[in-house]
Amino acid sequence: MRYEELNWTDIETYLQSDDRLMLVIGATEQHGHLSLLTDIKIPLALADAASRQSGVLVAPPLNFGASPYFLSYPGTISFRLSTLMDAVEDIIRSVYRQGFRRILVVNGHGGNAGVRTRLDELSNELPDLQLNWYAWWQSHGVEAIALEHNLKPAHANWLEAFAFTQVSELPSEPKAPPYVPRAVLSAAETRQIYGDGSFGGAYQVDAKIMDDIFNVALRDMLEILKFA
Amino acid sequence: MRYEELNWTDIETYLQSDDRLMLVIGATEQHGHLSLLTDIKIPLALADAASRQSGVLVAPPLNFGASPYFLSYPGTISFRLSTLMDAVEDIIRSVYRQGFRRILVVNGHGGNAGVRTRLDELSNELPDLQLNWYAWWQSHGVEAIALEHNLKPAHANWLEAFAFTQVSELPSEPKAPPYVPRAVLSAAETRQIYGDGSFGGAYQVDAKIMDDIFNVALRDMLEILKFA
Amino acid sequence: MRYEELNWTDIETYLQSDDRLMLVIGATEQHGHLSLLTDIKIPLALADAASRQSGVLVAPPLNFGASPYFLSYPGTISFRLSTLMDAVEDIIRSVYRQGFRRILVVNGHGGNAGVRTRLDELSNELPDLQLNWYAWWQSHGVEAIALEHNLKPAHANWLEAFAFTQVSELPSEPKAPPYVPRAVLSAAETRQIYGDGSFGGAYQVDAKIMDDIFNVALRDMLEILKFA
Amino acid sequence: MRYEELNWTDIETYLQSDDRLMLVIGATEQHGHLSLLTDIKIPLALADAASRQSGVLVAPPLNFGASPYFLSYPGTISFRLSTLMDAVEDIIRSVYRQGFRRILVVNGHGGNAGVRTRLDELSNELPDLQLNWYAWWQSHGVEAIALEHNLKPAHANWLEAFAFTQVSELPSEPKAPPYVPRAVLSAAETRQIYGDGSFGGAYQVDAKIMDDIFNVALRDMLEILKFA
Amino acid sequence: MRYEELNWTDIETYLQSDDRLMLVIGATEQHGHLSLLTDIKIPLALADAASRQSGVLVAPPLNFGASPYFLSYPGTISFRLSTLMDAVEDIIRSVYRQGFRRILVVNGHGGNAGVRTRLDELSNELPDLQLNWYAWWQSHGVEAIALEHNLKPAHANWLEAFAFTQVSELPSEPKAPPYVPRAVLSAAETRQIYGDGSFGGAYQVDAKIMDDIFNVALRDMLEILKFA
Amino acid sequence: MRYEELNWTDIETYLQSDDRLMLVIGATEQHGHLSLLTDIKIPLALADAASRQSGVLVAPPLNFGASPYFLSYPGTISFRLSTLMDAVEDIIRSVYRQGFRRILVVNGHGGNAGVRTRLDELSNELPDLQLNWYAWWQSHGVEAIALEHNLKPAHANWLEAFAFTQVSELPSEPKAPPYVPRAVLSAAETRQIYGDGSFGGAYQVDAKIMDDIFNVALRDMLEILKFA
Repeated sequence: MRYEELNWTDIETYLQSDDRLMLVIGATEQHGHLSLLTDIKIPLALADAASRQSGVLVAPPLNFGASPYFLSYPGTISFRLSTLMDAVEDIIRSVYRQGFRRILVVNGHGGNAGVRTRLDELSNELPDLQLNWYAWWQSHGVEAIALEHNLKPAHANWLEAFAFTQVSELPSEPKAPPYVPRAVLSAAETRQIYGDGSFGGAYQVDAKIMDDIFNVALRDMLEILKFA
Repeated sequence: MRYEELNWTDIETYLQSDDRLMLVIGATEQHGHLSLLTDIKIPLALADAASRQSGVLVAPPLNFGASPYFLSYPGTISFRLSTLMDAVEDIIRSVYRQGFRRILVVNGHGGNAGVRTRLDELSNELPDLQLNWYAWWQSHGVEAIALEHNLKPAHANWLEAFAFTQVSELPSEPKAPPYVPRAVLSAAETRQIYGDGSFGGAYQVDAKIMDDIFNVALRDMLEILKFA
Repeated sequence: MRYEELNWTDIETYLQSDDRLMLVIGATEQHGHLSLLTDIKIPLALADAASRQSGVLVAPPLNFGASPYFLSYPGTISFRLSTLMDAVEDIIRSVYRQGFRRILVVNGHGGNAGVRTRLDELSNELPDLQLNWYAWWQSHGVEAIALEHNLKPAHANWLEAFAFTQVSELPSEPKAPPYVPRAVLSAAETRQIYGDGSFGGAYQVDAKIMDDIFNVALRDMLEILKFA
Repeated sequence: MRYEELNWTDIETYLQSDDRLMLVIGATEQHGHLSLLTDIKIPLALADAASRQSGVLVAPPLNFGASPYFLSYPGTISFRLSTLMDAVEDIIRSVYRQGFRRILVVNGHGGNAGVRTRLDELSNELPDLQLNWYAWWQSHGVEAIALEHNLKPAHANWLEAFAFTQVSELPSEPKAPPYVPRAVLSAAETRQIYGDGSFGGAYQVDAKIMDDIFNVALRDMLEILKFA
Repeated sequence: MRYEELNWTDIETYLQSDDRLMLVIGATEQHGHLSLLTDIKIPLALADAASRQSGVLVAPPLNFGASPYFLSYPGTISFRLSTLMDAVEDIIRSVYRQGFRRILVVNGHGGNAGVRTRLDELSNELPDLQLNWYAWWQSHGVEAIALEHNLKPAHANWLEAFAFTQVSELPSEPKAPPYVPRAVLSAAETRQIYGDGSFGGAYQVDAKIMDDIFNVALRDMLEILKFA
Repeated sequence: MRYEELNWTDIETYLQSDDRLMLVIGATEQHGHLSLLTDIKIPLALADAASRQSGVLVAPPLNFGASPYFLSYPGTISFRLSTLMDAVEDIIRSVYRQGFRRILVVNGHGGNAGVRTRLDELSNELPDLQLNWYAWWQSHGVEAIALEHNLKPAHANWLEAFAFTQVSELPSEPKAPPYVPRAVLSAAETRQIYGDGSFGGAYQVDAKIMDDIFNVALRDMLEILKFA
């Protein structure tokens, strides 16, 4: 159940019996051969699925994240972290004002981690607000599946190659992970190092594995949405 | 052609022959009986249609605008104008860096008008950037159609009641426009004055009129996209 | 009655019987052949006149507005919109703290419109604050006078050529409005297009028309100052 | 020669033979029995006088300064220092862009001193910009006159009681300077301590002394305007 | 070699043969029984040791980090992340201007991770700047030592209990890690959950282990300082 | 008694009987032949001494101040004033939240004066907060000692040449104060004018004088710390 299918009285009715909300954040950035919106599509698909099972509302996704290091790849659109934190703060304050109290931020992009600090700051200020944060690729369940199949999760490799994030043919041969000289790189260096944009490893795996990953993340989210 | 269907190499290829882009901005806010995303759905539908005919790319929509006056209606999510300007600036700078030079901001929400000042500021700073702005409801063609049918355009009345923005039954009887005591109102006053959220007039009109409105706005956009 | 003629005990006395205030904002920017302070002089003259008849106080004018598009004309001094919003906010908060509750922002410059969003935001935060906004050239009465005389109002044409804004001879022949290719222009493009700075039409009209315009705007303001 | 008496072509002409400008900043704040605009009126009178003798242009005054400590006195309107610095920066950047290179900031208010740091920052960024700062009451000449007459200069005492800043009768007896417990006070404490707002000493002195003070400050400014 | 032992000509001399710098950031925050400055003391000790062996300069430490979640523990002093990013940016820009090009940020506090995004942004803007980031507790070598001794690293447990961070007796019995209900907690919840501030496990271990940990981190840093 | 020697329970205990705190701010900037940290070392030495006699806690020093004019001297690290004000605000808010109410900011650097305005703003907002500010070199006692010995205090001359700020030999002959053309200088001009960085006069004086200066400043601080 997304905002776009509802009008304001629907939200008012919802708030009479529930105060939970899912907010999807992610990125518009290079994902190698995959969709530029991969980091939105995955958490949004998870949120939609979790919404169907739990009835928890899904706010419109914030389509842009912090991706300064990928700006030399055309198609990457990056917010400064300061902008991103202000944007998330404004969303949280808007819905808090209307009665939402338990909010799960469903994050699809590693570069957005700094936003958590703003969430901490807001938690100190807004009484009774319960915020949570879920990054599906950091799930223990996801890690276990990768380990079981001897697969290494990385940006824009098999890990993110769901049917719904593919927009072109994927290479059949795996990519050797490049050497990374420093922990902080300019966008120009990043492109030089990563070439096609994948961080290396297999580009795709069996659909069954992808289903398992999706389902384990979905189970995580349903558990988290209990706010127990 | 939206970013979500493409990967970064598609954008790189596109930029070899074109430097135009459409950026959809709007709002998540009360629209009376219509979808909370009405101000995104309309400009996005127009941008998609214009893209099909012109081949110009459509960036992911920025789903949130400046709607402080509607915050007492549940479902309204408002950015501070400062946040909104920063967000649009970051988007423009990202795509400018990659070679886009002619950018049409397709705006769906009247409250976003202040963003134009930031666009002016950016135009002074970024060489060869050509920005344009289109607000479909201010089109002379749209006004002419309204006049022809003796209809008054207003927020959340027939003007925005396209098939794709309707999420519930619409009242069959028109609403008397309320008395508005001042030009600046708090969110609480706004809700008290506007009740169901529509600014008054007919809630719906014949589908043929809506088609005419859509088409005249689409023609505007195709003309504007020539950047002549 | 302006702040400059008063000391703080005068304001304290005033606040015992009234809580209204006029705040003049405008611009220092090119106005063709007219004074660079045209957008301050007009609203300030109106505020002074309204003050004489209503007794409502006039705060010192904020002499600078948002005029990025005119920066290639020497003499234009422009605030970023973010600065302008902060400035107006600080003024409102200062006077609110001391007891003013009904504040009319008398705006002389179209480029300042984004400030209204900050006023909306403040209205949500400060209890019992009643803000209003008046832009004289958008008055229905002013439009009616222009229509009656078959005159088109525009920046730096006859509309703003009051006796007190003239600082040099005005051309006797009207100017053909130039072709404007886009809605967002850099300052350099703006100067190239507009040449002497007027947006076209007659440079001056009969003093009687100007008096009528001033008086109709003044009547608007006196009505608005009732805060009814 | 003030901006308000000129149009943009006058400024363009001026810039062909000179690149100097005076910018008046000050405050709208309690000045005891004197005008709320005392800190604008004095530097503006000095700038006007200096302009008459030197031909150097005077920009419109920025009517608001940083006066947080006086906010409990009605009539005080204070900018946050961050707003004030942004405002002055925007003014400097605007005029720099148009060719001004030697700019004297004529400051009328002690609380604005932090602005100098922003001026330092701008000096590091804008090539060939020469900024200067003049605070008349810190002039050695002014101090000498005070010493000669055994008078102690202080906020809102005789020092600022020029004919043109007086808006009411002034007490004939001097005020004993109050005890000030700390260097940082809230606005409420400040009002409690300072009562009528003067910092103590004589409220007025012979007009001849005031003339001498004005003239010695004027001589300072004429010397500074040589930018030698 | 720290800045405090040097004057500016020493830095100028240094820059003639080297352009490397270490910048220590961390936190002033509760560390259970350990010093409030633990997150500064550890990276500073490492930087000093690395400086002795490599000759690379050490800038003064920034003593405050982002610790909003610990604010209910007296002694925690937290910067907003926006402040922290601005502070680090100002430091980087200052030293870049003077010729430093290879800068290692030695971070002592997990909550500072968002700063990396600002470093990415700066890397895109400042040519030839090479930034790196080291967080000693995330070192593979440190993890290996912990694993070898079957110890779990956590905030304010044995991991940070070096001789030089101890300011009081440490409990001899380990602490059971508490249950943490959500990923985002207010400061009040955090204190309720964590009690004495340690995240659980042993409070102290054999000094030999601590030496090994220090030395493995030092070796990391010496390797990183080669900027190879 | 500094934070670094304490853990959070020590602060909690302290707050049960006292609510005073000293916060040291200063600069990392060129000081001629003296240490780059001179403006931290002096106020910190004074704070430590005052702490020993009064028992008042000393927060960790903020090692960076506003020194834009010295940025052409290697070793100077400058915060924008906006950053510095935010940093000091965050520190004050953190400790206020935990119960500190009487806070003495011990400032070692003239360029930080703008921070006082932010302190004023905070005083208006935080109930019962008593802030004070001490700049040792502006002490009447210090001035009296200088006068007594016919010495002129200035940046990086004898005035700051304590034993603990010296890091190299000091010239034996005094320096002639250079001619300073304007009150606002770029960093490049500043270096050109001041050469070795001292503002002129004797580089060193008898240790007895320095002891007297230290002691008179210490007495000031002990008096101020009574917050009487």
